Amino acid sequence: MPPITVAIQGERGSFSEEAARKLLGRNFEVSPRENFGAIFQAVAKGQCRYCLAPIENTLAGSVYENYDLLLEHKLHIVSEVNLRIVHNLIAFSGETLRTIRKVYSHPVALAQCSRFFKRNPKIEKVPFYDTAGSVKMLAEKKIPGAAAIASHVAARIYRGRMLSSHLEDDPNNFTRFLLLSRTPAAAGNKVSIVFSTPHVPGALFKCLAVFALRDIDLTKLESRPLRGRPWEYFFYVDFTGNVKEAKSRKALDHLAEVTSYLRVLGCYKSGERPVGSPR
Amino acid sequence: MPPITVAIQGERGSFSEEAARKLLGRNFEVSPRENFGAIFQAVAKGQCRYCLAPIENTLAGSVYENYDLLLEHKLHIVSEVNLRIVHNLIAFSGETLRTIRKVYSHPVALAQCSRFFKRNPKIEKVPFYDTAGSVKMLAEKKIPGAAAIASHVAARIYRGRMLSSHLEDDPNNFTRFLLLSRTPAAAGNKVSIVFSTPHVPGALFKCLAVFALRDIDLTKLESRPLRGRPWEYFFYVDFTGNVKEAKSRKALDHLAEVTSYLRVLGCYKSGERPVGSPR
Repeated sequence: MPPITVAIQGERGSFSEEAARKLLGRNFEVSPRENFGAIFQAVAKGQCRYCLAPIENTLAGSVYENYDLLLEHKLHIVSEVNLRIVHNLIAFSGETLRTIRKVYSHPVALAQCSRFFKRNPKIEKVPFYDTAGSVKMLAEKKIPGAAAIASHVAARIYRGRMLSSHLEDDPNNFTRFLLLSRTPAAAGNKVSIVFSTPHVPGALFKCLAVFALRDIDLTKLESRPLRGRPWEYFFYVDFTGNVKEAKSRKALDHLAEVTSYLRVLGCYKSGERPVGSPR
Repeated sequence: MPPITVAIQGERGSFSEEAARKLLGRNFEVSPRENFGAIFQAVAKGQCRYCLAPIENTLAGSVYENYDLLLEHKLHIVSEVNLRIVHNLIAFSGETLRTIRKVYSHPVALAQCSRFFKRNPKIEKVPFYDTAGSVKMLAEKKIPGAAAIASHVAARIYRGRMLSSHLEDDPNNFTRFLLLSRTPAAAGNKVSIVFSTPHVPGALFKCLAVFALRDIDLTKLESRPLRGRPWEYFFYVDFTGNVKEAKSRKALDHLAEVTSYLRVLGCYKSGERPVGSPR
């Protein structure tokens, strides 16, 4: 059987690739794309079976661009995974922690390692377009005194050395990734939807009533501005259920009565929650 | 009377300074600080009368860091303004649109001008820590073939030339800024609150009921992960009302009954909405 293809944003060795391994094991091929729009397109056009999109980080919040792309494309969420983000200091040649003067990485990764930079005031932060991309760049250019912050997968792929691990300030650093496909998943215990409401007070309250009146548990509610219509919002809701079961189906039918737009984004098996519980 | 001091993030000439002018006229002095945490601290410690924090952009979404800082510090929201973000190409010396090969700016600003870069494929995007800071840097270093993307206020302060205006892809690009102080505002027609809910299905529904049952209009609902407790959330809600009026007071008393945490962040005059209407 040919390997499954998965479009990811950024270079090989990214946290997306780490997440793909958690979901799909080893029988897949990564197809790196320049931006999130391109990974959605790769699946929409049938070039790849899946794409993997980060949607929410416990520290940085939601990845708005991907919420917008979920709406723009008609793909289905077929699975999810909550990946613990571990930042590693990766270098080449004979570099050691003492010789490092510059550290390249994505600005978000640099910001998440602020304590490391406070402890090492002589080390300069250099923003780069991608975490794994900064490791790839150093593997090619071998800049003296330089290191990168990225996933351990990047160290292995580009044959870098891990000088230090767990550089992140906060261990509760998880990213939720969604696996997207052109065809829906066969089974699931979680449903993701998006809707907008008419312009009347209490509109969102009525929408949440369709779940509360049926004791359906919401696990996420996210508001997202409607592009081109300032201060109007789409709401993204995740709830525990299955679209083939009567309770969820009836809730969605009821929701359609009180919304101006409604779409099911996917019904899929929920990822393990590392800590805490759904609300 | 001594001028009012306002702490802003980043260099002079930022969009924050443009927003401060809209709110306070000309009788104020800007106190630039390195990061958002420092502007909140400047007010908390009494070094500045106000700070100005961007909280929401119609394209990029909420500024999560400032939502967290609202919770961390005990400041009051006393005013707000919705600023139209206009990106300008600013350069020095004899540079023209034809001689520019590199454009420096904050990555978000560069991303918001993607059509300009598509039309000018020979121009390289160079990420910089700050929009106004990139103008300041060019004013000092005079890098040949370089320009910056920033507010027109930055062009005036650093005596740069505007080579082109309205580089932004989407004209519906507004940032909502909050003015924060140690003392609450005297009057207002809008209330901002933050709360968390107990871990039971329907908890958020009950919270929204206190508003819906009193026909109180919500203008914003934002969920924000609880730092250190993955997949638990704080909810930030804005509603139309005044904490001194019985209706709002009763709604807040009722809300206190059904939440595990509740705080009023401010009661203030709502900013003009450029397009669209509250929901």
